[in-house]
Amino acid sequence: MIRFECDYLEGAHPLILKRMEETNFEQTAGYGEDAFCASAKEKIRKLCGGIDVEVHFLVGGTQTNFTVISAALRPHQGVLAAVTGHINVHETGAVEAVGHKVLALPSEDGKIRASQVRMAYEAHWNDKDHEHMVQPGMVYISHPTENGTLYGKEELQALHEVCQELSLPLFLDGARMGYGLMSEAGTLTLKDIAKFTDVFYIGGTKVGALFGEAVVIANPLLRKDFRYFIKQNGGMLAKGRLLGIQFDTLFTDGLYFEIAKQADALAMRLKDAFVKKGYRLRYDSYTNQQFPILPNDHMEKLKEKYSFAFWEEVDASHSAVRFCTSWATKEAAVDELIRDIEAL
Amino acid sequence: MIRFECDYLEGAHPLILKRMEETNFEQTAGYGEDAFCASAKEKIRKLCGGIDVEVHFLVGGTQTNFTVISAALRPHQGVLAAVTGHINVHETGAVEAVGHKVLALPSEDGKIRASQVRMAYEAHWNDKDHEHMVQPGMVYISHPTENGTLYGKEELQALHEVCQELSLPLFLDGARMGYGLMSEAGTLTLKDIAKFTDVFYIGGTKVGALFGEAVVIANPLLRKDFRYFIKQNGGMLAKGRLLGIQFDTLFTDGLYFEIAKQADALAMRLKDAFVKKGYRLRYDSYTNQQFPILPNDHMEKLKEKYSFAFWEEVDASHSAVRFCTSWATKEAAVDELIRDIEAL
Amino acid sequence: MIRFECDYLEGAHPLILKRMEETNFEQTAGYGEDAFCASAKEKIRKLCGGIDVEVHFLVGGTQTNFTVISAALRPHQGVLAAVTGHINVHETGAVEAVGHKVLALPSEDGKIRASQVRMAYEAHWNDKDHEHMVQPGMVYISHPTENGTLYGKEELQALHEVCQELSLPLFLDGARMGYGLMSEAGTLTLKDIAKFTDVFYIGGTKVGALFGEAVVIANPLLRKDFRYFIKQNGGMLAKGRLLGIQFDTLFTDGLYFEIAKQADALAMRLKDAFVKKGYRLRYDSYTNQQFPILPNDHMEKLKEKYSFAFWEEVDASHSAVRFCTSWATKEAAVDELIRDIEAL
Amino acid sequence: MIRFECDYLEGAHPLILKRMEETNFEQTAGYGEDAFCASAKEKIRKLCGGIDVEVHFLVGGTQTNFTVISAALRPHQGVLAAVTGHINVHETGAVEAVGHKVLALPSEDGKIRASQVRMAYEAHWNDKDHEHMVQPGMVYISHPTENGTLYGKEELQALHEVCQELSLPLFLDGARMGYGLMSEAGTLTLKDIAKFTDVFYIGGTKVGALFGEAVVIANPLLRKDFRYFIKQNGGMLAKGRLLGIQFDTLFTDGLYFEIAKQADALAMRLKDAFVKKGYRLRYDSYTNQQFPILPNDHMEKLKEKYSFAFWEEVDASHSAVRFCTSWATKEAAVDELIRDIEAL
Repeated sequence: MIRFECDYLEGAHPLILKRMEETNFEQTAGYGEDAFCASAKEKIRKLCGGIDVEVHFLVGGTQTNFTVISAALRPHQGVLAAVTGHINVHETGAVEAVGHKVLALPSEDGKIRASQVRMAYEAHWNDKDHEHMVQPGMVYISHPTENGTLYGKEELQALHEVCQELSLPLFLDGARMGYGLMSEAGTLTLKDIAKFTDVFYIGGTKVGALFGEAVVIANPLLRKDFRYFIKQNGGMLAKGRLLGIQFDTLFTDGLYFEIAKQADALAMRLKDAFVKKGYRLRYDSYTNQQFPILPNDHMEKLKEKYSFAFWEEVDASHSAVRFCTSWATKEAAVDELIRDIEAL
Repeated sequence: MIRFECDYLEGAHPLILKRMEETNFEQTAGYGEDAFCASAKEKIRKLCGGIDVEVHFLVGGTQTNFTVISAALRPHQGVLAAVTGHINVHETGAVEAVGHKVLALPSEDGKIRASQVRMAYEAHWNDKDHEHMVQPGMVYISHPTENGTLYGKEELQALHEVCQELSLPLFLDGARMGYGLMSEAGTLTLKDIAKFTDVFYIGGTKVGALFGEAVVIANPLLRKDFRYFIKQNGGMLAKGRLLGIQFDTLFTDGLYFEIAKQADALAMRLKDAFVKKGYRLRYDSYTNQQFPILPNDHMEKLKEKYSFAFWEEVDASHSAVRFCTSWATKEAAVDELIRDIEAL
Repeated sequence: MIRFECDYLEGAHPLILKRMEETNFEQTAGYGEDAFCASAKEKIRKLCGGIDVEVHFLVGGTQTNFTVISAALRPHQGVLAAVTGHINVHETGAVEAVGHKVLALPSEDGKIRASQVRMAYEAHWNDKDHEHMVQPGMVYISHPTENGTLYGKEELQALHEVCQELSLPLFLDGARMGYGLMSEAGTLTLKDIAKFTDVFYIGGTKVGALFGEAVVIANPLLRKDFRYFIKQNGGMLAKGRLLGIQFDTLFTDGLYFEIAKQADALAMRLKDAFVKKGYRLRYDSYTNQQFPILPNDHMEKLKEKYSFAFWEEVDASHSAVRFCTSWATKEAAVDELIRDIEAL
Repeated sequence: MIRFECDYLEGAHPLILKRMEETNFEQTAGYGEDAFCASAKEKIRKLCGGIDVEVHFLVGGTQTNFTVISAALRPHQGVLAAVTGHINVHETGAVEAVGHKVLALPSEDGKIRASQVRMAYEAHWNDKDHEHMVQPGMVYISHPTENGTLYGKEELQALHEVCQELSLPLFLDGARMGYGLMSEAGTLTLKDIAKFTDVFYIGGTKVGALFGEAVVIANPLLRKDFRYFIKQNGGMLAKGRLLGIQFDTLFTDGLYFEIAKQADALAMRLKDAFVKKGYRLRYDSYTNQQFPILPNDHMEKLKEKYSFAFWEEVDASHSAVRFCTSWATKEAAVDELIRDIEAL
């Protein structure tokens, strides 16, 4: 079985394992207060353009999402997000478990627009009974989205501006950040993202690390006491150095960007093969996730040799599925899959 | 600086890193549904005496504590624990954050007794206004305790019996389990613990792993939907295999027990040195944590070369401190420290 | 100004005030453990057909909703409800604040169907990643709905059957119960509702009482420790007798039913007037809430003399609005309004 | 049976019922936005010295406590309170249910001192691992306390000053406020309390009202969006006018103060009788709650005719009990009780 169902099928980039081995017996303080973390944070700060940001490391994406949201909102507030957003569908209600409603906005492509944020905000405040409703208190977006789509620079800037105007912190979930930054269709840099959001994170789990998400907080209000939140929510690793070592390695000599770029390139080869074969695409993704709509018999045939994720039924004879590449995807595996598609 | 302040100063046992490297490019399903986890779970089940238990892997201790407690209690219930219990003092109110009061019982040595549980239970139910008070719904103990002390077999059995009688699940926090099991003063085996508790966990973070806690659930009621709880609380690692690989390695050829035994032996050498020097001990520990009471000038002198944890002021000229050994502690470091103590 | 904007514009039915005055200096135990409550509960039990139910009194609707839901669900579960349900839109996220997601189902008329419940349940369990999603754990409906519509006996029975089959407790919010029971279009009796739901409540606030909701629990699992939940959630009135006195009065000589019937009759007179005038209706309600779609100039004209609730913009020149009658509505006020409508 | 077990045995002061009857058919807006509430708020503001405060009405004490605390704290913060404080023992963990730990301070008499607050604060911040502990975020006191004791003006001022210095909002639970203000031993006025606290409430339930607590917020930060919190926590009465009418009546012509004064006077007569009889007092209360220590045989004898609350066992033959007077206590009942005590 050759697996393409997600981007967390393997361990970590070998350079990370190597660095972990080299440093294994160095003694360091716990809880992220070590030199590896300090170095990784400094590198991330520089990549963000040297602006004044605070960097923290957490273990996983769901944890990062509910920790950030918990730190940002008061109890009567909710978070605006695409109805397809990870926090709305795939985190077992973790945001609700910390007390907040996800205020879902309709979305066809996984993105939300500045105008939607404004409308939702105004609908709330224009209602004379607004105290009976959850107050919008934050905006959550993901980049790339769960559908592999990307925000353009103007789109993010527009969201930034409306959020600033309405005093809504803008939170960007970058679980797959690398694949967005390096996409041939991408127009956003890390500096742009640092500039246009109040808080975001750079995903490690899906881009070369064993695990780990680097949270970057620009908004001073969200920084206050953030380490308490990490601890309370179970994200403060005793051996915090492990996160420092991983991110330090990923941001040495551009490793993070290089491996993401390669995964994107392989994904685009797959996309070309799907299109050439005549398949429609459920979402037009230029990142490491690809969503072809397969005739069901082709899907069954491919399943014999490959694993990939079922996405949704499109009609009686077609299904949307998801293939992912990652930093670990082998070129040969992609070649083989393409040959098999062509031969269907 | 030679560090003794905690038992998470280094990375992982080299055999773990080796195994992670060997398996790095194997593709596996995510979220703990892989063969490494299955193998590790099977080994743990066997060590528990082959009884019917369910095993899950989580990332850290605080996370494990609030996840288990959240799964076990209804909203109006609280958890009985020693006032010194980790959940009561060092988890930033994580248990309260999931909605439950920690019902603190007095404790001099970190342990609670069966009679205390019974008294607290009866005090609750005998009060005619019991509905105005938090209902005891679970009992939390740690073994070894935060003070390095150990439950004897009779003590745990007595707690088990009272808990069974009163329908209170008994939860044992085994963050430092190995050091307790292998202590020269220990009378409890893993089988005993599996038999006498409803749920417990075997700590990996402090005993050879990079991170990870293995939760063992005997009580069927607590098993129901437990994976939802892991996910909701941020403990479901995408690359769950990392937990499987680590625990599988630790429970191959008795590695977990061997390294814990060695750490305990080094700790006992330290203890002897403290006692020989005439220091009193804050707690009489036979595990990897040692709590000597140092004259403040000795404490200051030792600080120049060693790091260790300040515990509490005992009087104007004495302080209780904590020295820890671990699976990673070097014999030479202990030798050197002992020589320096003798020379004070 | 003559007010029709809601059904809580006045105090209480005079018989309630009279009874409160008569009993004012009787000394009783607090927290609902008095003879008035006992008597009221007994009357409600009889009206429910003498089946084995437990009755509790709470202060208000939002409080009752989150208290019942909090008692019924485990943390990873959510409650299925119409997207228009009160808990989803008008309770400031109280359900989320106690940790649960409202799993909103589409609805045009405020009702949900048995087939929707089944589909949502199956969609959850058929997803192989169901542990990453909120588990449906309860079904919430309101009768009458927020739109004045009613469940028919077959509809409620179908919901009951699917809920029984899927082990989902069925919870019916009866904040306006009386107006539903006495509607000319109603086919459900209190006995039916007691038989077909696991828990429901009979609204007092909007049907003659100063305040108060009577929760009727048939399902034994939901009864367990329910008084703790009332207390924890702030619903346990020190002078609980006030709730007992009110419900005892409402259920003496059929007062509750009589006053609701009269309000419905007045509402139907309004409805006739709207229809006769040629207005469309936003919802086809046979209860005390009426939702005509007014030309905006008519709306403005009526506003000069009457208060009523703006519901939503229908098109550039029309608005849906809500007029309510209640137990306290004066016949003369309705006459006057009808004359003014005719004269528009 | 003549009842003295608590101060909520009867309905409401007759003037309140009269006013409710007079206004019963006036139509008003819901949710506290009516003229009765406006008038009551204005009267309370004046009694607070005309300073800039915001006033809200809630239904009960537990609800008020968790609503205020929920509005004031961030998730990682807890509330400092006497170990005997109502929030710590008699609210079914409502504060924990909204996510916060009660940080209990030792207390013999129900009060806490400024020095205790400072010590707890400093202990937290001086600990290098403070992020692993709940951060003190608020101070809760009650006046009179649950033990009938009173803060002196200097004591409250000292608490105010330390709280200001440490940026901890000071919250005073005045469920029995009237009995404190009118006590012969009282040195605090309503103006003092408004000046020295950030938020407090004036209890209605126990001092003449059917129910209701008037929250007075001086600190602007705590006011923000407070009505959302009332709604989310179930405290926003649809017929909010009922709270306005009650407090407006209580604060017309000094009714609140007059009835509290009379209750205190009756309580002091009881106290004298206990002392004259040779009973010790568990707490030295000058308010409406009295805590004599009775020989058990006397206790049993009195039980035949009177109800009162068991407080705690003092020794094998003595019990502390509580007798309460209230605005509704009849002079004749006190006379009779005193005669019966003398005759024991």
